[in-house]
Amino acid sequence: MRLKITIAYDGTNYAGWQVQKNAISIQSLVQKAIEIVLRHPIQLSGSGRTDAGVHALGQTAHFDTDVDIDLSRLCYSANALLPLDIRILKAEKVKDDFHARYSAVGKTYHYHLQIDPVMDPKERLYRTQIFGPFDRSLLEKAIPHLIGGHDFTSFSNVRKNCDDTIRTLHRLDVFDEPGGIRLEFVGDGFLYKMVRNIVGTLIDVAAGRTLPDDIPKIFQGKNRKLAGPAALPQGLFLISVQYLDHQEMHKPFSE
Amino acid sequence: MRLKITIAYDGTNYAGWQVQKNAISIQSLVQKAIEIVLRHPIQLSGSGRTDAGVHALGQTAHFDTDVDIDLSRLCYSANALLPLDIRILKAEKVKDDFHARYSAVGKTYHYHLQIDPVMDPKERLYRTQIFGPFDRSLLEKAIPHLIGGHDFTSFSNVRKNCDDTIRTLHRLDVFDEPGGIRLEFVGDGFLYKMVRNIVGTLIDVAAGRTLPDDIPKIFQGKNRKLAGPAALPQGLFLISVQYLDHQEMHKPFSE
Repeated sequence: MRLKITIAYDGTNYAGWQVQKNAISIQSLVQKAIEIVLRHPIQLSGSGRTDAGVHALGQTAHFDTDVDIDLSRLCYSANALLPLDIRILKAEKVKDDFHARYSAVGKTYHYHLQIDPVMDPKERLYRTQIFGPFDRSLLEKAIPHLIGGHDFTSFSNVRKNCDDTIRTLHRLDVFDEPGGIRLEFVGDGFLYKMVRNIVGTLIDVAAGRTLPDDIPKIFQGKNRKLAGPAALPQGLFLISVQYLDHQEMHKPFSE
Repeated sequence: MRLKITIAYDGTNYAGWQVQKNAISIQSLVQKAIEIVLRHPIQLSGSGRTDAGVHALGQTAHFDTDVDIDLSRLCYSANALLPLDIRILKAEKVKDDFHARYSAVGKTYHYHLQIDPVMDPKERLYRTQIFGPFDRSLLEKAIPHLIGGHDFTSFSNVRKNCDDTIRTLHRLDVFDEPGGIRLEFVGDGFLYKMVRNIVGTLIDVAAGRTLPDDIPKIFQGKNRKLAGPAALPQGLFLISVQYLDHQEMHKPFSE
């Protein structure tokens, strides 16, 4: 049978989600914990990688097992083997053709910016501090240019030639939080570093280094050098991955 | 002139507030940062020590200087020299006879308990996880026995003979937060480890190991062994120190 798990993690201490040589990845720790509980090797497939330092409240992954184990017991036992900065929130039985990556129809990311000069020490690993001028109204003027279907090549560090660089950004909303703002991204999918590159560009816009109306030209140029630098990983959270059969937005913790 | 500063810190990485041999204390880092900005040695006097791993949102301290510096500039410059887990929130001119410790008329502490089995990874350094049974109504039945003026010897790790072990606990309230509860303590002063020993005793009460009505006997025995073990430092926050001339409760961050 195929199981889907939902995982929350603080990415600070890890080399990212994906298994890597010579570095501790979140995927490898979760996989090992489940293998110890089930007593057989598994192949854990995530919805996508998150980079070093990026956090998740609702990363998803799937694997196959024939062990008939109570699913809450599986979570409990695996969590007892995992460090406290990685938590399995849920395990669910899914159809055999479910795939954490290929069945996904959308993702939600949040990015936290600290604007007040003095940041809460508790938030230092979860927000990116803005230095210098920051005009939120300029940032908000740039957003309509980003919404919708676009070729996001200029906003992506695609490593190889990639045929499909078209993505649809359904929502990009700005919310106040104490000391700063939160940017909420909902889209059908995101290219490599796309969220962080958009945030870096929006920081440039808010600082007056880029005009809101420059965004269409950045898209048209299809050149990574036209957009701003990638914002730091620490402000980024993968909030949820959406599937057609699993519409609920899993968000168990207040941010 | 005498200056009062208000400081927030994440105590995770430090040996506590107080300067110690062979360990990095928060006091020593704050003092060094201010000395670099003012270009003369200072003697920084805190409102009291906090132990290793204990956090603060409103620790206070005072020092003297003759340097005529803009106070927001002093904070800004000292913060630029400090790690992000220590922030000076405010500097104020106070009367020459102000003393961070001896002028204090009250303190507020919060203690965070995680009751749900799965803790938000972001909160792992800021809450204490409860394992086993936890009956909040039992805990609440114990609270009235703790409020008011008592000899808190049984709840304190006083190191030497100490004449004055009478303290008044004005308030001890329980609030819900996502995944657990927060205990808010307001008192005229707290003996060494008093908050953590009370919390440890309340955890015993909620688990059924101690009866709510045992609290008066614990007071009467004046013996540390009668109360429960000290709760872990990581759930404890010094929220504010109250002074007669400075009545406002400084609480700049949402917890």
